[in-house]
Amino acid sequence: PDSKLPALGTTIFSQMSALAQEYQAINLSQGFPDFDGPEYLQQQLAWHVSQGANQYAPMTGVQPLREAIAEKTQRCYDYTPDVNTEITVTAGATEALFAAITALVRPGDEVICFDPSYDSYAPAVALSGGVLKRIALQPPAFRPDWQAFSELLSDKTRLVILNTPHNPTATVWQAADFDALWQAIGQQETYVLSDEVYEHICFAEGGHFSILQHPQLRERGVAVSSFGKTYHMTGWKVGYCVAPAAISAEIRKVHQYLTFAVNTPAQLALADMLRKEPEHYLDLPAFYRQRRDFLINALQESRFRVLPCEGTYFLLLDYSAISDLDDVSFCQWLTKEVGVAAIPLSVFCDGEFPHKLIRLCFAKQEPTLQAAAERLCRI
Amino acid sequence: PDSKLPALGTTIFSQMSALAQEYQAINLSQGFPDFDGPEYLQQQLAWHVSQGANQYAPMTGVQPLREAIAEKTQRCYDYTPDVNTEITVTAGATEALFAAITALVRPGDEVICFDPSYDSYAPAVALSGGVLKRIALQPPAFRPDWQAFSELLSDKTRLVILNTPHNPTATVWQAADFDALWQAIGQQETYVLSDEVYEHICFAEGGHFSILQHPQLRERGVAVSSFGKTYHMTGWKVGYCVAPAAISAEIRKVHQYLTFAVNTPAQLALADMLRKEPEHYLDLPAFYRQRRDFLINALQESRFRVLPCEGTYFLLLDYSAISDLDDVSFCQWLTKEVGVAAIPLSVFCDGEFPHKLIRLCFAKQEPTLQAAAERLCRI
Ligand SMILES: CSCCC(=O)C(=O)O
Ligand SMILES: CSCCC(=O)C(=O)O
Repeated sequence: PDSKLPALGTTIFSQMSALAQEYQAINLSQGFPDFDGPEYLQQQLAWHVSQGANQYAPMTGVQPLREAIAEKTQRCYDYTPDVNTEITVTAGATEALFAAITALVRPGDEVICFDPSYDSYAPAVALSGGVLKRIALQPPAFRPDWQAFSELLSDKTRLVILNTPHNPTATVWQAADFDALWQAIGQQETYVLSDEVYEHICFAEGGHFSILQHPQLRERGVAVSSFGKTYHMTGWKVGYCVAPAAISAEIRKVHQYLTFAVNTPAQLALADMLRKEPEHYLDLPAFYRQRRDFLINALQESRFRVLPCEGTYFLLLDYSAISDLDDVSFCQWLTKEVGVAAIPLSVFCDGEFPHKLIRLCFAKQEPTLQAAAERLCRI
Repeated sequence: PDSKLPALGTTIFSQMSALAQEYQAINLSQGFPDFDGPEYLQQQLAWHVSQGANQYAPMTGVQPLREAIAEKTQRCYDYTPDVNTEITVTAGATEALFAAITALVRPGDEVICFDPSYDSYAPAVALSGGVLKRIALQPPAFRPDWQAFSELLSDKTRLVILNTPHNPTATVWQAADFDALWQAIGQQETYVLSDEVYEHICFAEGGHFSILQHPQLRERGVAVSSFGKTYHMTGWKVGYCVAPAAISAEIRKVHQYLTFAVNTPAQLALADMLRKEPEHYLDLPAFYRQRRDFLINALQESRFRVLPCEGTYFLLLDYSAISDLDDVSFCQWLTKEVGVAAIPLSVFCDGEFPHKLIRLCFAKQEPTLQAAAERLCRI
């Protein structure tokens, strides 16, 4: 069949993980931990399965998980979404992003995103017939240029997609960025999709600022998060989104025919975990800061230049002192010849990307990071 | 926001299950078992979780599960799909259906389905800008009218969606039906989506005929199945589709941004189950026939007329001797006043539905079926 997404190949994460395996390289490309989540979570999964919690969950998510999400949102952002109408559990954050985009973007609508941007946004917008307008963020600070934003904005702008802490640049938005966004779009009916899957992996002073903390923006915002990042279980595929009832109603219309519901025992186990250790997430910044600093330290003797990292479990390296290769070729070379797989940044951008940047995942045990750094220092 | 699916409410399954709960009715509406799947499957899930299989699965599904699906397909349908390019594991059959429709249907394309039809097809077609043409199947046999089909067919017909064993009518397609379909569409580039989630719950002589057994149709076909039905675990949400490599490639482009991957430990547990008991599915027809016949028997004294049931775990009842209410009102009355929740058939159709038919799910333990039948006999 002729393709509705003709330019699209396999996602870079699958590509690089496969290449890493083929060349037995240390895989710091696709973002996932090489350590496990809480044992309690695992035990509870087995328990719920053994208790017969194996049939369809409610379409919106099991009640105890939605309640726990509401409490967690209150604790973190001083805002309590309605358990019944504003919280929807999805098959990972990916489904929440796809469902929100599909629910909101109509053919011909314009959508603004900030490049580099996570690679699932553009295909979802395209499948809804939307027109994506991209604002290039510039290294090393990757701050949004609000002048450029205002120039892109039109009365056709239906949706703005942002991501904080930001994958892949590891930067975070401050309250002032949200204020600037509100200044720009407040007058028109533009929605905001805020991808906050790394909400609890934030090293910035003052921590993560969520769209749910912004009283105006949250009225037209969809906040997306993921338990996979927070509990080191990316393979469980449980995420969720929080949005006002009217927006949630539209997202649910899509979700109910996209996956209908999410794995029941995993949802119940996560609800137990949130109830038992409601402040587990408070440990995450220190936990990941240590890994980040370990890697940065281990790379000090290398010819890479390390960029600032305020959040996520990704670190950007500038390799311009090492090679003239474009970043895709450099990552291939790095995997095959050096034995370390990384992600090139240009794949998160449309068109020209004149920087020499790659992304490493540091959600790994220290021996893994040490071994990778040793290889990288040898270049 | 104004809605992309304005006419759409909450799916009938959520509605009726909620109503059943509110009125403490016996819930024979939404299709799910009230008994559990194999203990071995549950044990293996716990085992894989404890072994650290908690990170992202490959986008297409874990290798052992795809291998097991290939073997199962060979065993059942004498056809071996390619493990790497033709099998995709999805978040339940629902995601496979949505991904296939989204991958194949372009704005303006026409899609033919047979009414009554499962309620997820139409919204998925609408979200892709497709135009759904519906052929009404007539009770009690619900056979496709190939004359009417030919009249609906046009050079814009991109996709035909069929379902066998058929939910909700409990009828099955024979090889001759597939031949007739091929006769009709063979000359043009029309794809076929074959929803076969009840493939192993078939009571018809000769058993289930799969599109994968039809050499011509399978070249442009997508066969969708579900482990939830086969292993009595609807809440695990693992399904899959089998399609030629070129079609699978397009489906995967959507799947990778829709959910990316499916719960890893559940996939591995299912692979173990399929390997350990490759012929488990052979027991299913007898298992469900017993429940079906138990319910039919228990309803003999009632004023309902039972329709033939060749497959699925659903039974149709004609209530025209009891009430003049339309089927939605009748199901509400039945839930509230009689204490049995059922599904009205008109919700699977567009426009006029002049029949008085409701659907009961018999994937229940005998005491549940007995209690429901007693209530129904009292009318
Ligand atoms: C869905 S696989 C990719 C994981 C991830 O979010 C990343 O590596 O950026
Ligand atoms: C997705 S919930 C509905 C289950 C089902 O397939 C049915 O009841 O027909």
